[in-house]
Amino acid sequence: MFRKRTNAEEAKRLFLKEIGSIHGTEILRIEECDGRVIAEDIVADTDVPHYRRAAMDGFAVRASDTLGAGRDAPVALKLGKNMEKGVCMRVHTGSPVPEGADAVVMLEDAAVHGDTVEIFAQIHPFRNVGEIGEDIEKGETIIKNGHKLRPCDIAVLASLGIDSIRVFRRPAVAIIPTGEELVHRGIRELKMGEVYETNGLMADLYIKKWGGITKLHDIVTDDPEKIKDAIDSNLDADMIIISGGTSVGKRDYVPGVVKEMGKLIAHGVGISPGKPTALGIIRGKPVVCMPGYPVAGIVALFYFARPGLRKLGNLPDDPDRVISAVLAEKIPSRTGYKTFVRVKIDNGRAVPLAVSGAGILSSVSKADGFVIIPENIEGLNAGEEVDVVLIE
Amino acid sequence: MFRKRTNAEEAKRLFLKEIGSIHGTEILRIEECDGRVIAEDIVADTDVPHYRRAAMDGFAVRASDTLGAGRDAPVALKLGKNMEKGVCMRVHTGSPVPEGADAVVMLEDAAVHGDTVEIFAQIHPFRNVGEIGEDIEKGETIIKNGHKLRPCDIAVLASLGIDSIRVFRRPAVAIIPTGEELVHRGIRELKMGEVYETNGLMADLYIKKWGGITKLHDIVTDDPEKIKDAIDSNLDADMIIISGGTSVGKRDYVPGVVKEMGKLIAHGVGISPGKPTALGIIRGKPVVCMPGYPVAGIVALFYFARPGLRKLGNLPDDPDRVISAVLAEKIPSRTGYKTFVRVKIDNGRAVPLAVSGAGILSSVSKADGFVIIPENIEGLNAGEEVDVVLIE
Repeated sequence: MFRKRTNAEEAKRLFLKEIGSIHGTEILRIEECDGRVIAEDIVADTDVPHYRRAAMDGFAVRASDTLGAGRDAPVALKLGKNMEKGVCMRVHTGSPVPEGADAVVMLEDAAVHGDTVEIFAQIHPFRNVGEIGEDIEKGETIIKNGHKLRPCDIAVLASLGIDSIRVFRRPAVAIIPTGEELVHRGIRELKMGEVYETNGLMADLYIKKWGGITKLHDIVTDDPEKIKDAIDSNLDADMIIISGGTSVGKRDYVPGVVKEMGKLIAHGVGISPGKPTALGIIRGKPVVCMPGYPVAGIVALFYFARPGLRKLGNLPDDPDRVISAVLAEKIPSRTGYKTFVRVKIDNGRAVPLAVSGAGILSSVSKADGFVIIPENIEGLNAGEEVDVVLIE
Repeated sequence: MFRKRTNAEEAKRLFLKEIGSIHGTEILRIEECDGRVIAEDIVADTDVPHYRRAAMDGFAVRASDTLGAGRDAPVALKLGKNMEKGVCMRVHTGSPVPEGADAVVMLEDAAVHGDTVEIFAQIHPFRNVGEIGEDIEKGETIIKNGHKLRPCDIAVLASLGIDSIRVFRRPAVAIIPTGEELVHRGIRELKMGEVYETNGLMADLYIKKWGGITKLHDIVTDDPEKIKDAIDSNLDADMIIISGGTSVGKRDYVPGVVKEMGKLIAHGVGISPGKPTALGIIRGKPVVCMPGYPVAGIVALFYFARPGLRKLGNLPDDPDRVISAVLAEKIPSRTGYKTFVRVKIDNGRAVPLAVSGAGILSSVSKADGFVIIPENIEGLNAGEEVDVVLIE
């Protein structure tokens, strides 16, 4: 039994408090920067556009020449090559507005007859003219240090002619699966008591999805010395995730090893499934010990490893994809635990996958998302509207 | 002026109707399959677990031996190596439950004294025993053809010992930026009337983010023959995105070329910004003509190219990330247009970035998301609660 259970949010707070964000950076071509966090302010060294541009296809004019023009009282201007009083010049959307012109008459407000253009509308100065720097002004800080770049941000960088930028390096995460029952796929048939390793693989793929780079360690058997060696050889990573061996049984050495090598922040947390999660810090490196039971493991990944990775990587807390649904059946939960209930979405209803314990990996695969029940609530009733956090 | 404006949803429906999903597949190692769509049913060829496993650390017993046991009336069993009446055996979470045992007593309900174990609780048969196939039953279809794989699904595949699977190939999208004003970055300084190409780059990055693979064509000038050649040389792609030249000006050749080479589904759609969007099909290949104005272009990408790509790639309609906010200011919109209003989130308020027209790329970069106003509504008032669709 766990002597102490740390409240979920408190455990997360204590864990994140110990994590410092990465300062290291690298320079990349902007094409490679989708999803990366910029590590510099971008100050525009030029105006965009760097010339006055037409906002419409039409005719550049001096607005004063169109005074009194209307549908029934067109003003005739000469179609010219140089701007002067009484002259207009053809322009296209985005093309320069010639010096001397101060407005653009839309095509539909004009009619061309040889080298004369009839203008059917009086126009104000600056109308349909994009001024220099209307998009970006020279000297403006256009993207701030710490922003997570989207394709539209990268397009802005391109509009300034920028080719490469400084971004924070991605957090490196070492993943250590432990358990004497674990076998790598593809080596041999399973014997009695053996299972294929899945938690390390799953952690590896989630960390990559969330913006980290990974190093998946070989399976380590339940031996404190070997666990210690594996941790020791991975302290060059920014975070260590250990799977398995986190409970309080005879073979559960991981929390003890973490405590011996560094500091155990929590062991036994108020999440369900996921209670045997342990959190620690070893020589400044955060350590997430995810329970071997795969459903408990995934909850620990989402609830602790993901925010830890984000803090390390200067990444923002992107909100989850959430859909609301009506609960199809009553779901029980234990007070004192933040409870993650696997549900399937069926026609706007959230159907709990109730059959399954924390050891049933396939139940996560069958689920579309989690309904998260707070600690102070004892279950939810059928018919209640709930938010389903989709499992990504 | 556009002679005809197609309603946004109608245009999307007509466009998607013409798109067939890709049948082509490839075989990949499961480690590479996050976000990919599986192209086969996975039927379990084994039970998981393939043995009865202990769900707890403790002692395997015959439940009948614990009859009447309690805190004050322990039952003494012999700690043995072979299961028989009156004997118990040590087990760990996940380890095999020996034949003859039918339940596992938790550690905390037992006390060991030499080779005797006191049991403090009466236990029912099957208690704390995971049956063979409790996670996955042999013969069960565990993942269905067409499912988009998440790391937790890949872990399930791993639990079955599966190494590689068949997935749909990713849609190949050719992107053709057009416009005589466009210049590639890094070649030379801009002259009067020139801008750097950004829409093609942005489309390229979004298509990759959404699960496609891309081929970014060189810039094509506003010449119908050259546009035709560029399309012609890219008809091996699954979709073509052309940027620019979609309006109704003298230099806007793209919709005409699409019409000449195939079928123009819509030109002029009820989205704002994005009205000059054109949609077509050329020899079975969907063509999205995004307006050159970058904000209009991004709306066309999100509203037409993304669902087109998903249909091609057998990808599900993942819901957007949405947050609700209170509108800080009134926003106008034109009835008849689905209007995409750029907003910044500030302290739970959605602040419209009202300054900016469709040509102001930086306004998208400054925005956190769009508030989407339906066609039949004339603007929204300050104080209204709105959904903000985050720009990814």
